[in-house]
Amino acid sequence: MKERLIVQKYGGSSVANTDRIKKVAERILKYKRKGRSLVVVVSALGDTTDELIELSSQITKYPSEREMDMLLSTGEQVSSALLAMALHKLGIKAISFTGAQVGIITDSAHTRARILDIGAERIKEELKKGKVVIVAGFQGMTEKKEITTLGRGGSDLTAVALAKALDADECEIFTDVAGIYTTDPRIEPQASKLERITYDEMLEMASLGAQVMQSRSIELAKKFNIPLIVRSSFLYKRGTMIYNPRKNSKEAKFMEGALVSGITLSKNEAKLTLCDVRDKPGIAAQIFKKLSQEDINVDMIVQNISRTKRTDISFTVPKSSLRKAVRIARNSSKTIGAGDVAVDDDVARVSIVGVGMKAHSGVAAKMFEALAENNINIEMISTSEISVSCLIKKNLGERAVRSLHSKFNLGHIKRSK
Amino acid sequence: MKERLIVQKYGGSSVANTDRIKKVAERILKYKRKGRSLVVVVSALGDTTDELIELSSQITKYPSEREMDMLLSTGEQVSSALLAMALHKLGIKAISFTGAQVGIITDSAHTRARILDIGAERIKEELKKGKVVIVAGFQGMTEKKEITTLGRGGSDLTAVALAKALDADECEIFTDVAGIYTTDPRIEPQASKLERITYDEMLEMASLGAQVMQSRSIELAKKFNIPLIVRSSFLYKRGTMIYNPRKNSKEAKFMEGALVSGITLSKNEAKLTLCDVRDKPGIAAQIFKKLSQEDINVDMIVQNISRTKRTDISFTVPKSSLRKAVRIARNSSKTIGAGDVAVDDDVARVSIVGVGMKAHSGVAAKMFEALAENNINIEMISTSEISVSCLIKKNLGERAVRSLHSKFNLGHIKRSK
Repeated sequence: MKERLIVQKYGGSSVANTDRIKKVAERILKYKRKGRSLVVVVSALGDTTDELIELSSQITKYPSEREMDMLLSTGEQVSSALLAMALHKLGIKAISFTGAQVGIITDSAHTRARILDIGAERIKEELKKGKVVIVAGFQGMTEKKEITTLGRGGSDLTAVALAKALDADECEIFTDVAGIYTTDPRIEPQASKLERITYDEMLEMASLGAQVMQSRSIELAKKFNIPLIVRSSFLYKRGTMIYNPRKNSKEAKFMEGALVSGITLSKNEAKLTLCDVRDKPGIAAQIFKKLSQEDINVDMIVQNISRTKRTDISFTVPKSSLRKAVRIARNSSKTIGAGDVAVDDDVARVSIVGVGMKAHSGVAAKMFEALAENNINIEMISTSEISVSCLIKKNLGERAVRSLHSKFNLGHIKRSK
Repeated sequence: MKERLIVQKYGGSSVANTDRIKKVAERILKYKRKGRSLVVVVSALGDTTDELIELSSQITKYPSEREMDMLLSTGEQVSSALLAMALHKLGIKAISFTGAQVGIITDSAHTRARILDIGAERIKEELKKGKVVIVAGFQGMTEKKEITTLGRGGSDLTAVALAKALDADECEIFTDVAGIYTTDPRIEPQASKLERITYDEMLEMASLGAQVMQSRSIELAKKFNIPLIVRSSFLYKRGTMIYNPRKNSKEAKFMEGALVSGITLSKNEAKLTLCDVRDKPGIAAQIFKKLSQEDINVDMIVQNISRTKRTDISFTVPKSSLRKAVRIARNSSKTIGAGDVAVDDDVARVSIVGVGMKAHSGVAAKMFEALAENNINIEMISTSEISVSCLIKKNLGERAVRSLHSKFNLGHIKRSK
């Protein structure tokens, strides 16, 4: 019988120091005893990446991205070699590789490269010998043998891409939290761990502020239908499975009953209002085209009801793009003969997420009700297939999360297998 | 006109921290202003290698050599990337590479690999673009893409091998001393810097205890007749050229007048005496064959004059091989019916080195005279084409060096161009 092949990824806090690396090795030993085949992706030791960035900043404020990749990719190489040594110490056959060595081929966009291909032959060869194969996360190389890194969440991406290339049975993401929660437990201590969540919900939660995983890794997993398990490397407990419910109709049916899976809070947006705009077809399109041409990710958009042939248009942008967005909005305003541009960055966005809600009316109404009961004024609203977001005053963000968590009974949520 | 191509190597103390790396960049700027083409080999930052070794030792006492190479090779990659950034900051075009990237192909003897080939195409391509090419020292890869390191003195070796592969005009070794001295200045403050020294003298000095460069790099430079310049990265001063005098007969002639170039002292040897050995052809051969089979490097050998058909045989071995050598000597003694094995590790070896001495009688006699004048008893003597060594009591080593330095007038030596 073919051994079950698992790709595991251990994040920076899971390999923060040599003691933690030994713990990871012990965990791997348990898997080997169960007869599993393992490919292990590791991040850099705890603060290594920060220390390397500090070194570069001592030299220059504007390091070349290519050289940053040369520098930063060493962090994962170090932790990979150390984990191999720790496994050897426990009598487990293991071998470590850089991204380049196992043929993780990327494009040449240094510091944010995209994986184009993985020639996993070398890994398969070593798996056949019964070895645990350790791969330095976050990195690859171009066809021209330039070392690249994959950007934020890069090691997760390495793990998912390897799981696909190797046709693995599972992909486990070990991190410093026990799984995906109904909301941030630092805000709502009643937050409960989800046993399962769909790719779409997870993507929505990630884009709306949940920090556990980057969207690109989830998207890749969804694309290839690779079940991800997010779990703690500090505990021996089941985590949260991120999966595709369509494969199992019973599951999908159950999911629809759950309605709301999670609550997210984001304070990274700002609101712009373009006042006194002529209410004429094409005017709004003109503004948003300009913004998108400059790579500004406009999110919520609200246009007031027009009584006087003139209207106000409000929209949110990431705070990091705020200055640029204001400049563009002011120019647009002149061009189209509109009025002032008002800016408000004292806002927070609170969202409810759940695949169930699209089949049920009344979910949004329940949300507004909860906020009203807590005297929280809603400034803007936006909805998607599986989420409803409200823009509110920033200092009310946490209160809003707690009130929604309680309203939707998320403290008791359990999605059992 | 073709630009003059120089390969430079900067050792660990030359790139100890980011400030030192900036200084190296400034030095390189001066070369570029003179229109030089440059390939720069760097060691790891100051203590990096020790820190990495410490990490591995926290995990296991017996790390796999392959994984040690994965681990340690990151040190030079970090310093290479940082130097590239420092050069960019000064407006110099530069690019860094790992050993693997520039095709430094080695055998698979991890931690002590030998360079088999260098495919320098990538370097030539970047040099043509006017870039300073930085290469991580001390490392290479096997045909199977395994990362290897070259062992002690590995970065020097990288520099010499690159100088050969690129047909460079010069190879400069930047270190924390100003050049090669007539003897260790910590022992004899009168020690003077040599402007020139032959490969053979340097090899003899290295094998007799001088620490500046490893023999294997000098041997490689000699083999391909690549002039090496050893100089300080802390000073802007001419260093010492290590070269082949046969190419220049005037020089060679001058050299013969110098007689003694340097004095070395080694405390890393121990003396064994096999007593009461039958004085019969083949007996000695038998013992030394056994020792060589076990890779023990026997150095000085003295057999006493025989009066009684039985004799004592004394020889020196490196202290690191002493235990093994004693065991072999005792076994041999039984086999050949000899007596006790006496061990003396309270010895030092003082040597005079110079290509001139082979053409002159009286040099050895002058050495013995100097030692006698200082009441230093000689226990063993050995000679080579270009050196004479005496084994003496360890605590007299420094006194012997000073007396010889003065006797041969080395405080005033100057070998001008």
